[in-house]
Amino acid sequence: MKRPALSMVVLALAASFTLAAQALAQTDPLPSWNDGPAKKAIVEFVQATTTQGGPQFVPPGERIATFDQDGTLWVEQPVYSQVMYCLDRVPAVVKAKPELAEGEPFKTVMSGNREAIAKLSMKDLEKLLVATLTGMPTEEFRAEAKKWLDTARDPRWKRPYTELTYQPMQEVMKYMRANGYKTYIVTGGGQDFVRVYAEEIYGVPPEQVVGTAGGTKYGYDKAGKPFLLKEPRLLLNDDKAGKPEGIHLMIGRRPRAAFGNSAGDKEMLEYTKAGDGARLAMLVLHDDATREYAYGPAKGLRASKVGTFPQSLYDQAGKQGWVVISMKSDWKQIFSFD
Amino acid sequence: MKRPALSMVVLALAASFTLAAQALAQTDPLPSWNDGPAKKAIVEFVQATTTQGGPQFVPPGERIATFDQDGTLWVEQPVYSQVMYCLDRVPAVVKAKPELAEGEPFKTVMSGNREAIAKLSMKDLEKLLVATLTGMPTEEFRAEAKKWLDTARDPRWKRPYTELTYQPMQEVMKYMRANGYKTYIVTGGGQDFVRVYAEEIYGVPPEQVVGTAGGTKYGYDKAGKPFLLKEPRLLLNDDKAGKPEGIHLMIGRRPRAAFGNSAGDKEMLEYTKAGDGARLAMLVLHDDATREYAYGPAKGLRASKVGTFPQSLYDQAGKQGWVVISMKSDWKQIFSFD
Repeated sequence: MKRPALSMVVLALAASFTLAAQALAQTDPLPSWNDGPAKKAIVEFVQATTTQGGPQFVPPGERIATFDQDGTLWVEQPVYSQVMYCLDRVPAVVKAKPELAEGEPFKTVMSGNREAIAKLSMKDLEKLLVATLTGMPTEEFRAEAKKWLDTARDPRWKRPYTELTYQPMQEVMKYMRANGYKTYIVTGGGQDFVRVYAEEIYGVPPEQVVGTAGGTKYGYDKAGKPFLLKEPRLLLNDDKAGKPEGIHLMIGRRPRAAFGNSAGDKEMLEYTKAGDGARLAMLVLHDDATREYAYGPAKGLRASKVGTFPQSLYDQAGKQGWVVISMKSDWKQIFSFD
Repeated sequence: MKRPALSMVVLALAASFTLAAQALAQTDPLPSWNDGPAKKAIVEFVQATTTQGGPQFVPPGERIATFDQDGTLWVEQPVYSQVMYCLDRVPAVVKAKPELAEGEPFKTVMSGNREAIAKLSMKDLEKLLVATLTGMPTEEFRAEAKKWLDTARDPRWKRPYTELTYQPMQEVMKYMRANGYKTYIVTGGGQDFVRVYAEEIYGVPPEQVVGTAGGTKYGYDKAGKPFLLKEPRLLLNDDKAGKPEGIHLMIGRRPRAAFGNSAGDKEMLEYTKAGDGARLAMLVLHDDATREYAYGPAKGLRASKVGTFPQSLYDQAGKQGWVVISMKSDWKQIFSFD
């Protein structure tokens, strides 16, 4: 027998290293998580629902997992990134319609006075959303949002907003998908806005993004080409009770697992847990001021209007078997760039 | 060398027969179709869009195909099966609310006078839809609809409505799925109604059914268990311009291929064909009174209010490169039981 050439030996060794690395990766699907009840709950749920013949087995078609976005999959403080988008769009809107410049809330936004902007009323904010998110064809909106996402930077990390996703949650989504789960984003944010980047940054395609949605109107341009115009007509306010309502409308199945981080996710988690068999409900608690932010007011953390996690939600989680994820103690790493 | 046992020879032969059968099946993915321009258009489209490196290649994630249901995937004459469901539900509704019995349209429906029922106004029909499709929890509606589907029979074929799907279209859906397409139903029928059976009879899961949809309201029963109540509040009228609007809302991507059979599908086909690259738009023409029904009024066929295919739609198809499927000449077989 001829001795194998050195190159063959190297190839064989490389192959066995690859296999060993794969085996190692398989032993821990959630490397950014510290061992603890949260990590354990996720792994046990996935194992139980995918063990063929087991008492909690879930057929692949019914494996639906829903994830809130702001504060659950990426940073939401100090202000939702979509609100930053709307504020940044105001100069272009005013340029196109100069008559807006003297009226509110445009005058205040154009002044650049941050304190005054932070005090805008809900009604003024709505005017801002209507002016910056509706009135244009869907494809024009998509192009504008994409351009902004490519250039805008978060003030604290000086990085694109799309890099501020939580590495541990990215791992959960990948782990669930690898086990036959369809992962959905169910967000209070704008459905059309989140769809612009969800596929690239989370691997979640547009048809698996459920969000606050307005109507569109079908029409034709001068050349006779059809387009959809974004209208200021709210179809779904995908927050609080709107989340299970949106899940029924867009998915039509009750989730097996749901992840959130605030009072806006309460009904989605209740609805998920009310189904038969194994169900998983989890809430991210932002208790890490050093590596990210700390806010509640649950557990004595500072209160926040953005992503409020009240003590009552914390107590309900305890009573109903929802698992609270402590960012500080459950997450080894927060961002991929850490 | 020992001679192989007879059983081994049989097994080997069986295996090679299976392979041969599979190879044969692969040569014709659409056995219920006669050779002709319609079959050719489907096969060429699928081959062109799935040939890696080819000029018309479409990445798997973008492979979206939408199918109208009534008249495209199953029989819609003489009356949509969902209307039959609503009529059949009236006695139960009147029993629960006896005060309805003396008012219209319930009085006429309860009389059983078919001619009078056929003449009910649009407004009366709407009252009927509201009374039979809303006001109950989503799960109760689902159970009622399922029970009806299991027992109701089409008067002509004396079979469950769910058996009256077109074998050639079933083959198209399977063929497209085998080539990485996500198949969606986009129907003017009720989204919740079609979701009850679409997975079982078409292999289309609930989350891939887009239809006329009403709002739901989240609430709790006496035991504190959450449920969604079906409300008489129209969110999406998924017909005509409502089809591309519904596609944007529920899918968020422009289809690559769309199939319809009536004026209600015009905008969906226009929207599909207005995209870049390879796009397929097809219309089923019911021109086979012997094996199914013949109606138009296109091509001089009898006019019908149900599933109207006007001559203008036929002419538009010719101008815009949409392919018309002749049920009579393109389909070798109509139903699986033929």
